[in-house]
Amino acid sequence: MARIAPAEVMIDLFADAPAHDPRLAAYLLAAYAPEFPPETIFLCIVDPGVGSDRRAALLQVDGRWFVGPDNGLFNVLAVRAQASRWWDIDWRPGRLSASFHGRDLFAPVAARLALGEMPVCTEQPLLQRVEPGWPAELAKVIYVDHYGNAMTGVRAQALPTSALLQVQGQSIPHARTFSGRPPGEAFWYENANGLVEIAVNQGRADRRLGVALGDPIEWAG
Amino acid sequence: MARIAPAEVMIDLFADAPAHDPRLAAYLLAAYAPEFPPETIFLCIVDPGVGSDRRAALLQVDGRWFVGPDNGLFNVLAVRAQASRWWDIDWRPGRLSASFHGRDLFAPVAARLALGEMPVCTEQPLLQRVEPGWPAELAKVIYVDHYGNAMTGVRAQALPTSALLQVQGQSIPHARTFSGRPPGEAFWYENANGLVEIAVNQGRADRRLGVALGDPIEWAG
Amino acid sequence: MARIAPAEVMIDLFADAPAHDPRLAAYLLAAYAPEFPPETIFLCIVDPGVGSDRRAALLQVDGRWFVGPDNGLFNVLAVRAQASRWWDIDWRPGRLSASFHGRDLFAPVAARLALGEMPVCTEQPLLQRVEPGWPAELAKVIYVDHYGNAMTGVRAQALPTSALLQVQGQSIPHARTFSGRPPGEAFWYENANGLVEIAVNQGRADRRLGVALGDPIEWAG
Repeated sequence: MARIAPAEVMIDLFADAPAHDPRLAAYLLAAYAPEFPPETIFLCIVDPGVGSDRRAALLQVDGRWFVGPDNGLFNVLAVRAQASRWWDIDWRPGRLSASFHGRDLFAPVAARLALGEMPVCTEQPLLQRVEPGWPAELAKVIYVDHYGNAMTGVRAQALPTSALLQVQGQSIPHARTFSGRPPGEAFWYENANGLVEIAVNQGRADRRLGVALGDPIEWAG
Repeated sequence: MARIAPAEVMIDLFADAPAHDPRLAAYLLAAYAPEFPPETIFLCIVDPGVGSDRRAALLQVDGRWFVGPDNGLFNVLAVRAQASRWWDIDWRPGRLSASFHGRDLFAPVAARLALGEMPVCTEQPLLQRVEPGWPAELAKVIYVDHYGNAMTGVRAQALPTSALLQVQGQSIPHARTFSGRPPGEAFWYENANGLVEIAVNQGRADRRLGVALGDPIEWAG
Repeated sequence: MARIAPAEVMIDLFADAPAHDPRLAAYLLAAYAPEFPPETIFLCIVDPGVGSDRRAALLQVDGRWFVGPDNGLFNVLAVRAQASRWWDIDWRPGRLSASFHGRDLFAPVAARLALGEMPVCTEQPLLQRVEPGWPAELAKVIYVDHYGNAMTGVRAQALPTSALLQVQGQSIPHARTFSGRPPGEAFWYENANGLVEIAVNQGRADRRLGVALGDPIEWAG
């Protein structure tokens, strides 16, 4: 079996990434991937269309590699990058199950990349693969973490800190960090990956505010 | 401390395996283990009888190794295999806690196997250890994954695709894959490990159908 | 990127450690850390005060290393040890986010320790950093595991096995292990790390007894 050196191990960062909705995950991935070192290989599986005829994608984006289904998951990443290349993966394994391409197709491709082997694939002009018309910022909750904090698809640079965030009929002020608000109080802040995140000091924003994955947000000010 | 090479790291595949019921886990393990490469070492702990006098088992099954309690967990695996050998583990650690043999007994045995060291043990005739009379297929829900899909202990080869599956008073048709059914609709399909699995396209089968671990299933057709 | 050998990988043992309350986690950490081999590096993040002016701590305790916020998390560990040394971490990364010192400050320090590099820091007299007056045993539930077992901050050596444990108005007898009580019955036992743990044979103590994190316990006898 191929041995992957420790530094090349691909980390399962969001095992609870939004299921069924590659668009939410696309904004999450675009915010988190740039923290990783060059040559990192990302194996990304949010794949509600497995078994249909969606393509298999391999990307190189600003020096990092991404392997997964071509269903929008890499769209935000490719649009925001300085330099992106896109390949359709032509290689197919001897046995390809109908429902688990993560195991049968994408993971072996990622493992071979880690060994320095490029799979059989065909490069495509980026503009033929990137879906046009996606918003620069996605004004929705794209992830709720296990503390109940709700990340949005909006980068904090898009809002002044004076802005009041509206979510589920409630209006939420900015704070720089958790300790900047009394326990139990809600706020929004720029999280460590640059996203607008809704939180409650020493509490759960999801329960306190009734926010859930996909909820729309707005802001004023 | 012993160093285990990356390729030999034992993966915690089902940290949420059915607790308290080695029989359910036995069918799950038998379906998933054959995917792993030869010489893989499985450390398997579903151990409600820890602290009682159940034996400790080491098996070699079709080239893979299994370490864990002798409580039925390896029964299906051993019965289905081409070639199985079974040892009682005689080795005991200097300190053996009453409640955590996974840490004190089984993990050190697995780690030593990874170093090529066979623990002190006594080989047993397979027929003296395998419990007779277990069904070839277990017509129950044996695992509910974190998407709410319900795996059964029945291999899909045992059913025609025309079969209607009965569970919790509901009748469920076959589909080849998730995208073969409209969103929100339930179906059964052959999962990537060959088991009959109950799912809902872009939904949770456990909530939609009210199915839970241990529920019986039947089929007609 | 720095490569950390497999044996030096720091294990995320309690990804669900009590959030917001370093005191509960402090008793948990003190019970579990001594099982690890010398030179183990613990990266410990329970950090409700991130972004405030709490210090960053590096400890060497009985041959093991601990990195994390100076908020009480290491208090029990340091008090119980044979030999402890305490440093304030002076090193700061080029970019320090307001809300994620785990990623920006503590993880890089731990990674460098694994490479044998000591960060820039200032040793402090232990008595200037350890908070006085903490109880030797914490008579509270400090952790509920994913089986529903409730660990307390009390070491079993502090109780005779004849003691009846009081929690949520209920009185619970001792058993040596799970199989020593009928299915569905509650008991307390000395867990594999020496703590008093409340459990139910083949059931969930949290639901059966209504116990939760932080609940007080008492004992008689």
